[in-house]
Amino acid sequence: MKPAAVSSAAFRQETDSRPLPPGWKSYMSPEGVRYYVNSCSKETTWRRPSLLTESPQRPLAQQNSSPYANGCHSTAKAGRPTEATDVALRKPTMMKQPPGSVSPARRQIKEVKETKITINCVTFPLPGEGPEQQLLKPNEWSYCDYFWNDKKDPQGTTSVAGFEVLLQKQLKGKQMQKEMAEFIHERIKIEEEYAKNLSKLSLNPLAAQEEGTLGEAWTQLKKSLHDEAEVHLKFSNKLHTEVEKPLLTFRCDNFKKDLKKYDHHIADLRKQLASRYTSVEKARKALADRQKDLEVKTQQLEIKLSNKTEEDIKKARRKSTQAGDDLMRCVDLYNQTQCKWFEEMVTTSMELEKLEVERIEWIQQHLRQYTTLRHETDMFNQSMVEPVDKLLQNVDPAKDRELWVRENNTGDVRPVDMDI
Amino acid sequence: MKPAAVSSAAFRQETDSRPLPPGWKSYMSPEGVRYYVNSCSKETTWRRPSLLTESPQRPLAQQNSSPYANGCHSTAKAGRPTEATDVALRKPTMMKQPPGSVSPARRQIKEVKETKITINCVTFPLPGEGPEQQLLKPNEWSYCDYFWNDKKDPQGTTSVAGFEVLLQKQLKGKQMQKEMAEFIHERIKIEEEYAKNLSKLSLNPLAAQEEGTLGEAWTQLKKSLHDEAEVHLKFSNKLHTEVEKPLLTFRCDNFKKDLKKYDHHIADLRKQLASRYTSVEKARKALADRQKDLEVKTQQLEIKLSNKTEEDIKKARRKSTQAGDDLMRCVDLYNQTQCKWFEEMVTTSMELEKLEVERIEWIQQHLRQYTTLRHETDMFNQSMVEPVDKLLQNVDPAKDRELWVRENNTGDVRPVDMDI
Repeated sequence: MKPAAVSSAAFRQETDSRPLPPGWKSYMSPEGVRYYVNSCSKETTWRRPSLLTESPQRPLAQQNSSPYANGCHSTAKAGRPTEATDVALRKPTMMKQPPGSVSPARRQIKEVKETKITINCVTFPLPGEGPEQQLLKPNEWSYCDYFWNDKKDPQGTTSVAGFEVLLQKQLKGKQMQKEMAEFIHERIKIEEEYAKNLSKLSLNPLAAQEEGTLGEAWTQLKKSLHDEAEVHLKFSNKLHTEVEKPLLTFRCDNFKKDLKKYDHHIADLRKQLASRYTSVEKARKALADRQKDLEVKTQQLEIKLSNKTEEDIKKARRKSTQAGDDLMRCVDLYNQTQCKWFEEMVTTSMELEKLEVERIEWIQQHLRQYTTLRHETDMFNQSMVEPVDKLLQNVDPAKDRELWVRENNTGDVRPVDMDI
Repeated sequence: MKPAAVSSAAFRQETDSRPLPPGWKSYMSPEGVRYYVNSCSKETTWRRPSLLTESPQRPLAQQNSSPYANGCHSTAKAGRPTEATDVALRKPTMMKQPPGSVSPARRQIKEVKETKITINCVTFPLPGEGPEQQLLKPNEWSYCDYFWNDKKDPQGTTSVAGFEVLLQKQLKGKQMQKEMAEFIHERIKIEEEYAKNLSKLSLNPLAAQEEGTLGEAWTQLKKSLHDEAEVHLKFSNKLHTEVEKPLLTFRCDNFKKDLKKYDHHIADLRKQLASRYTSVEKARKALADRQKDLEVKTQQLEIKLSNKTEEDIKKARRKSTQAGDDLMRCVDLYNQTQCKWFEEMVTTSMELEKLEVERIEWIQQHLRQYTTLRHETDMFNQSMVEPVDKLLQNVDPAKDRELWVRENNTGDVRPVDMDI
């Protein structure tokens, strides 16, 4: 079971024939770079929006068996960077402001509201901020909708990825089936013990000397214990082959390996994301440094505090712009990586969800087999009593007397008077 | 349970209002003693014939519940004694030849055929001799018809009375019911063990962590083992109160005492009979001696061998006659005693027969109770599976996912792109 391959075409500025979501139009910039504008919200973005990339996010197709998320999401607001950037500083790069977008105010850093938060390197909208998110699979309580955050470890400071919670559930499920098999095994032992005891008692010679029709009935009664023992032995054998063994061997050891593959795959993507995030932070700091440097030099020029030439300022300005470009590049790489991780999360959590459905249904089926065997056993057991009933019905004291008297009489000639 | 009182009126020459069997008429002798004559066979007897006393013997009334023999039998041929007696010698005593009977020939001893045989002091007709005996209770294989002889001990020289065989059967029956109770007790122990094991397993926490609808079904499955345990415990309790205990207490210890009373009563009558028989043998010998003496004395007189006077011969003749009378009295007492023993045999063996019928029917009834309990148990046991079936039917992976996700989700807010 391999993780599904995910296309990353969403991020390539290639000719893409996929349909744009409603409201979006595609344009070409003077530099020859394609960009996209939402005619409703006036959003502009370099990134091609897919069915999931518009806001509010459109729900996934409502198919139970489609584990694949369709593309990636984005609430791209590249037109409104949280950090103020001097538009004029921007070189014509891929990541400059696309034409026709709203010009950012200079130095609005203090007035821009925080709308997002990054926790453990994953970026979320703050509550109440941004367009409302619809569930990907509404009314299904689907794994892909509910495990985005990491879970804080109550004791310590570490946290567990939401995906990890899903994985542990599957591992626990495997443990459950093993324990159920153990339980059934214990039942089997009890049945075998019971059968052994009944069988042994059936051979006991108590009252074996009873004769006639009553003796026959008694003999059959004793034999019926052996018949019952056979029924219980049959029950225990079937429990073994039809319930215990399947429970033990369902999803053999490869299952855990497969789960581990999922685990590592997702964990790797998180590591990549963390790494990208670190780069973003570094770039952000570098930009801040460059901007501070530029600001200081500009002020100094104005008050003619130093002998710095305009050449120095131009250099500082250039470095600032470069840092800005670097930051944009890092943010973009981060978003790409987060998107990839997102897609894999959706795909894989859907797979785990399917596995869980299968597990429950499979166990249900085999526990029903258990109850079927129980029903059968009681019916067979009842029928073992019937021959006894029959013979008891035939018990006949007169017949028994005849049999016994024929066998044991001492003489039928009666005494007569003695003659003189 | 006391032995039935038996009337011995058959032997008393009192006014008897019981009807005579057909063919018999009653007369009065000159001495005032009643005698009886069979108009068909010309038999005569001092003893009043009853319904059983004529030959061929008439069968007993065909009633299963009438344990009492009706009077005593007799193939009285008192008119034809086996030993020759000088009719002329007879004094008018009670035991003289009744009038109108055939006169015996003198000294026919050597020519009288042996028609009877006495074994262990009981007198039987020899095979082929005497009138054919009909069974007292034809087609019933009744105890009262088949245990007249003693049984020879295969190993030694002793023998066992037929009645003893019947008694031993009853004692063995008591042993059988005790052994059956033991067997049931063993079954009870097996059931209790089984119930204990099931109950213990039902408390086992294996797979207790399974949640949701599947967890509910599993929990009920485990509980059903406890329910089954209860069913088996109930079964074992009922086995104890409705089968084992009754089998143990049916016919409590007084039963054996009662049997012993029967045993001693019948044995005593046999001892009396033996004693009477001894007397008969002694009287027979005494008579033979007296006759020999008379014969010798008569011969001596004829050849004038001695000086014995006719007076001596008369004395010898008197003694002879007396010896004859003694013999007749002894034989009569013997026959009375044998008749008494006979009646008690019939009465008591019928009682034992009834006891055996009751024993068999009682055991049959209680073993049927056993099979009824078995049926019930299997039915109850089956019904313990139904709640499990129901919950298994309700197992719903979607519901379980909802429950689990509600409980364990880490967050439903999806990540968004980071802004610059």
